[in-house]
Amino acid sequence: MRVIGIDPGYGRVGWGVVEGRRHELACCTWGCIETSKETPMPDRILQVWRALNSLLDEWSPDEMAIECLYFSKNVTTAIQVAEVRGVIRLAAAERGIPTAEYAPNQVKQAVTGSGRADKRQVQEMVRRVLALETVPRPDDAADALACAVCHHHCRR
Amino acid sequence: MRVIGIDPGYGRVGWGVVEGRRHELACCTWGCIETSKETPMPDRILQVWRALNSLLDEWSPDEMAIECLYFSKNVTTAIQVAEVRGVIRLAAAERGIPTAEYAPNQVKQAVTGSGRADKRQVQEMVRRVLALETVPRPDDAADALACAVCHHHCRR
Repeated sequence: MRVIGIDPGYGRVGWGVVEGRRHELACCTWGCIETSKETPMPDRILQVWRALNSLLDEWSPDEMAIECLYFSKNVTTAIQVAEVRGVIRLAAAERGIPTAEYAPNQVKQAVTGSGRADKRQVQEMVRRVLALETVPRPDDAADALACAVCHHHCRR
Repeated sequence: MRVIGIDPGYGRVGWGVVEGRRHELACCTWGCIETSKETPMPDRILQVWRALNSLLDEWSPDEMAIECLYFSKNVTTAIQVAEVRGVIRLAAAERGIPTAEYAPNQVKQAVTGSGRADKRQVQEMVRRVLALETVPRPDDAADALACAVCHHHCRR
C-alpha cells in the first residue's frame, strides 16, 4: 500500500510517499510545496492545489495521512492553515483517496513510542525506519514522512 | 457588475447574487448549500465544491465577497469553517474571480450604517436595498446577500 503523508502549512506544505505494509516500509519520494509571501493568498491556494494534484497524478497513493493541528497558540495561523487543509482534503476526496488525520503527538507516539519525543528523535526514527542515509530535508518533508509512517503503523 | 456573496459555514454555505453598481442594486438569486452531519467530512467538502462550481458556472459572477470570521468563541468550529472557506476561495481563484473578505461588523456597518446593528436590522435593510417583498430565507442566504451588498458599497 502506498501512503502520501502531508504536513500542511500556510507557506509550506511538506509531503512524502511511503510504500509497504506495517513495519516493512520504503520511502518513494518527498518534498515541500512552497508558496511566496509576496503572492496573494488566492494564488497561493491555487498553487498548492495544482502542485498537490500533480503529485497525486504522479504517485497515485492509495491513502492520505494529514497532520492536523486543531489547537495552536496562534489562532489566526491555525485558521489560515485550515484553509489550505480544506483544499488538500478536497484533492483527496475528488479522487476517492481515503484520508486519515493525526495529531502531532499521535505521530510522535506511533513513530518513536513516545508522544513526548522531540523533533530530532522523530526525524531520526523516520530515517531508520525508511532506511535513509540522512534525515530528509526540509523539516516539513520529514514531518510528512513521519505522518505517512504513523498511518502505516496505525491502520488496521 | 455581478457579485456573489458567500456566508461560509460548516454544514451550511449561504450564497446570494447581487447585480448593479453601488446603490442601484438588484438581487438575482440566493440559496444555501447544505450538507448532512451524517456525511463524512471529505464528502461534505466535495459536495460544497461541486455545488459552488455549478453556481459559478450558472451565474458567472465578476467578483466574490466572503464573510470571514477569524475569531470565534469556538476555535474548533472556526477551523472547520476555514477548511470550507479554503475550498470556496479555490473555486474563485481557479476562475480568476477576485475575492474580497469582510468581517461581520464590516458587513453590518456597510449595510445599515452601524457595526452594532442586529441580525434583523441587517436583514430588513437587505430586503429594502434589493427591493424584495420579504426577507430572504434561510438566514445564511440573507447574510450572503448582505455581504454582496456590502461589497457593492465598499469597492472602489
